[in-house]
Amino acid sequence: MKLKQSFIMALSVLSVSCVADSDDNSTSKDVLSTIHSRKSVRSFTDQSVDKSILIDIVKAGMAAPSGMDRRPWEFVIVEDRATLNKMADSLPYAKMLVASPAAIVVCGNIDQDMGGSFYWYLDCSAAAQNILLATEAMGLGGTWTAAYPYEDRMRVVSDALNLPENIRALCVIPIGYPTGHESPKDKFNAAKIHFDKW
Amino acid sequence: MKLKQSFIMALSVLSVSCVADSDDNSTSKDVLSTIHSRKSVRSFTDQSVDKSILIDIVKAGMAAPSGMDRRPWEFVIVEDRATLNKMADSLPYAKMLVASPAAIVVCGNIDQDMGGSFYWYLDCSAAAQNILLATEAMGLGGTWTAAYPYEDRMRVVSDALNLPENIRALCVIPIGYPTGHESPKDKFNAAKIHFDKW
Repeated sequence: MKLKQSFIMALSVLSVSCVADSDDNSTSKDVLSTIHSRKSVRSFTDQSVDKSILIDIVKAGMAAPSGMDRRPWEFVIVEDRATLNKMADSLPYAKMLVASPAAIVVCGNIDQDMGGSFYWYLDCSAAAQNILLATEAMGLGGTWTAAYPYEDRMRVVSDALNLPENIRALCVIPIGYPTGHESPKDKFNAAKIHFDKW
Repeated sequence: MKLKQSFIMALSVLSVSCVADSDDNSTSKDVLSTIHSRKSVRSFTDQSVDKSILIDIVKAGMAAPSGMDRRPWEFVIVEDRATLNKMADSLPYAKMLVASPAAIVVCGNIDQDMGGSFYWYLDCSAAAQNILLATEAMGLGGTWTAAYPYEDRMRVVSDALNLPENIRALCVIPIGYPTGHESPKDKFNAAKIHFDKW
């Protein structure tokens, strides 16, 4: 009886997880599951990340929506240890850059005559979110550490990366393989959903 | 013994199908594919969207990252035809609201004493991007039509939705089933990727 019970229990558990994977809504389930399992990862293993993977993640960033299709984003992939450490030294919430094998810095071009936008930080925030989701989906981890709107932090990143005057850093996203210390937060709050009117 | 054998067989079959779903990176492929196939959908069929689906989409919005975990977002799900038409009338780039069965309005709370944030529009942009991706993943379509930072458009949305003074509208996202007119853009541009330094 004990075996039969565990048989049925194991079957139920496996069936549920397999049905979730195989019915024709599997894409939407995978996407929603990745959105909900994304977490701020701040501790990384020693494993390096292939440059081709970092480029694929940046490509996901470039698929973000952009007001008037101006695409004001620019991306810096940083793997140089000295540069990562330099940013870690001076950015108050990016100390984990000393342990991440790489970072993606999401920047925006404010020069409207050169494809930039006054509201670059909105498009670039959408691009950063694509980057965080692509990172999570690929089994990697990262977290948004803010540069914009803090002038001092933007200056640190500009100096470390030699950014031109019209290029502003929105955020530095350390990227690596997660140690597994971090878990996603359940932020659902029904009180934040309003219907038709406030 | 017979039961034990079928137990093991069933477990193997189920395990294999589960492994098959997960070991070829199907999740990351689905997520990347959704990121790249997301498009600005502006034409909709007559089909209505279940309220439960709209709520699931908003839940995806609430899973966005948030600076200092303040979660300054608020969401209004609009299905009332008069309200949708009122916003369509006065928002220059949101005329398609007359044809969409619903809209999700992403708002932010600027009152720091009440869980808000001075930089609500960054967190809310990440939330809006989650909403656009969840919409695409579920076979629906939508597009970010800007309210913020345009004072006149924010006022239109505030009036239509009766928003309190501390609640600001970032964008109005019409949502519905797409007619199939729109295609995703390939925005990849290798010149926008920089390595280690500019």
